[in-house]
Amino acid sequence: MNFVNRIVTKFTALSLLLLLTACANSQPVQDPLPSWTEGASKQRIMDFVHDVTTVGNADFVPANKRIATFDNDGTLWSEKPTYFQLMFILDRVRFMAADHPQWKTTQPFKAVLENDMATVKAAGARGMLELAMATHAGMTTEEFEIIVNDWLATARHPSTGQPFNAMVYQPMLELLDYLRANGFKVFIVSGGGLEFMRPWTEAVYGIPPDQVVGSSIETRYELRDGNPVLVRLPEMHFIDDKVTKPVAINRFIGQRPILAGGNSDGDFEMLKWTTSGKGKRLGLIVHHTDAVREWAYDRKSAEGRLARGLDEADENGWLLIDMANDWKVIFP
Amino acid sequence: MNFVNRIVTKFTALSLLLLLTACANSQPVQDPLPSWTEGASKQRIMDFVHDVTTVGNADFVPANKRIATFDNDGTLWSEKPTYFQLMFILDRVRFMAADHPQWKTTQPFKAVLENDMATVKAAGARGMLELAMATHAGMTTEEFEIIVNDWLATARHPSTGQPFNAMVYQPMLELLDYLRANGFKVFIVSGGGLEFMRPWTEAVYGIPPDQVVGSSIETRYELRDGNPVLVRLPEMHFIDDKVTKPVAINRFIGQRPILAGGNSDGDFEMLKWTTSGKGKRLGLIVHHTDAVREWAYDRKSAEGRLARGLDEADENGWLLIDMANDWKVIFP
Repeated sequence: MNFVNRIVTKFTALSLLLLLTACANSQPVQDPLPSWTEGASKQRIMDFVHDVTTVGNADFVPANKRIATFDNDGTLWSEKPTYFQLMFILDRVRFMAADHPQWKTTQPFKAVLENDMATVKAAGARGMLELAMATHAGMTTEEFEIIVNDWLATARHPSTGQPFNAMVYQPMLELLDYLRANGFKVFIVSGGGLEFMRPWTEAVYGIPPDQVVGSSIETRYELRDGNPVLVRLPEMHFIDDKVTKPVAINRFIGQRPILAGGNSDGDFEMLKWTTSGKGKRLGLIVHHTDAVREWAYDRKSAEGRLARGLDEADENGWLLIDMANDWKVIFP
Repeated sequence: MNFVNRIVTKFTALSLLLLLTACANSQPVQDPLPSWTEGASKQRIMDFVHDVTTVGNADFVPANKRIATFDNDGTLWSEKPTYFQLMFILDRVRFMAADHPQWKTTQPFKAVLENDMATVKAAGARGMLELAMATHAGMTTEEFEIIVNDWLATARHPSTGQPFNAMVYQPMLELLDYLRANGFKVFIVSGGGLEFMRPWTEAVYGIPPDQVVGSSIETRYELRDGNPVLVRLPEMHFIDDKVTKPVAINRFIGQRPILAGGNSDGDFEMLKWTTSGKGKRLGLIVHHTDAVREWAYDRKSAEGRLARGLDEADENGWLLIDMANDWKVIFP
């Protein structure tokens, strides 16, 4: 081989190397879950993802069947001192009160305006529904989206002073990214309102509107000045909680997830439905154990009550995530 | 520059070229819609896709807002001599008759078993609902999926002898692929049953189960021998037709489409909702004009009746696709 040929050969090899490197877009191996403490929880999640994504592995699952569903309140963002959507309702009642003078003398609105939370709570589910309908219905879907966005831009959490959608869990954001990077399609399946979540889930969680499943009210198509609108009606369409979470998963997603994450007994049936399927499955429960950095609560909490899930996690093989020990940081 | 340096320079340039070429994965320019006749319809579709996907263009739409929705019956597959789901219902009644001896003397089942289609039709919407519930409910969701798959594997269309899901429109398959290749997320929004479509839409249309919106019945979560199942109940949950198509789009997709395709007045409000949005939009109507290769029908048809859509297509700026002239081939 003469000198020129050796140069040519060398550069052809270099070309191939450059080509392979550039196209594989290879990067140094990074920890996909840096906010998770090294330990059994993190390892179990990573083992699961490895097992279902490795071609040839007995537990391999093709990408189009890698469905993951997550609850929202208490699983992806906080839910104390009460559900953030309830904070929104109370703010909206206060804001709308000027146009509804009768609320000053009508319960449960009167109690909201007087900041008498004991009476608000005493009004129960029926009172809550009344407050929800008064604040969530009567406008078009596009008007409601603006209302939610305006509230998120201005409202602040009472104890942290943060915007509510900044109170999301950094380790869970990493988990969502990690799953997507491994071919999972990630959905929210929440008791919260569909249209209360959709305006911001894509920016915050990377979850687009059509991958958000939740509770909903009825809407009606009508023409206004010849233009179609969808009007939000003061009537529940669907409550997405407990036994209806698998119903909603089937209706909206149409496949049984292979991974589900929740934090309360409202997620019990979603986890049961998910992990009872054939093949390798993973059920996760975020256990709120950190009174210093977030809140510590389970069996006796009005929000995110977790009792059966704690008692039956072991026999179902569900992974209890201990916020205090498994997460290095809570919020971004 | 000495000879060796010139060789090195030449091969470095070659490396870069190879690299750019390989990474762009460039291929000869192919016609994305080969089954569409060259002409105004094809051009309008391609202009629309060009305009909404070209960065810097006034009509540019980011990929996460490129939502396209299509009706199914008569838009993606045929609907003659009657809706294929009705053919399924009739076949199921015949198949299940041995276990339901009373059907021999009870209408509308008796008429189905006697192949007396006039009486079946005379039973109207109520009779149809009764037949639908008898054949679509009473089993688990997973059992129903097997039933649908078995039927599709064995049933044949009465005039073509083809499996029903082979009677899909090749030009529309190309359109779905073309849209996806341009970053669109493509959904079905059909009056047909959710769970009648989902078992096969991914294989045939490339549309996964969670991107199928349709009519549905109620389901109930229950445990059988400790294992959760979803049982299909003989009760309608939602009929996805006319004014409820935009309602379903909002509920399932959560964004207004920028492109919608239909073929009947059942799609009128979906097209209206889609094309009334801000920015560039496209509404398509498949007009069944080909009595030789498919069927020709519109204003007077029991299936896919199209009258208002024909009358108001122009003023709404909707593209009427003339099957006979715009499509070189109909079926794959």
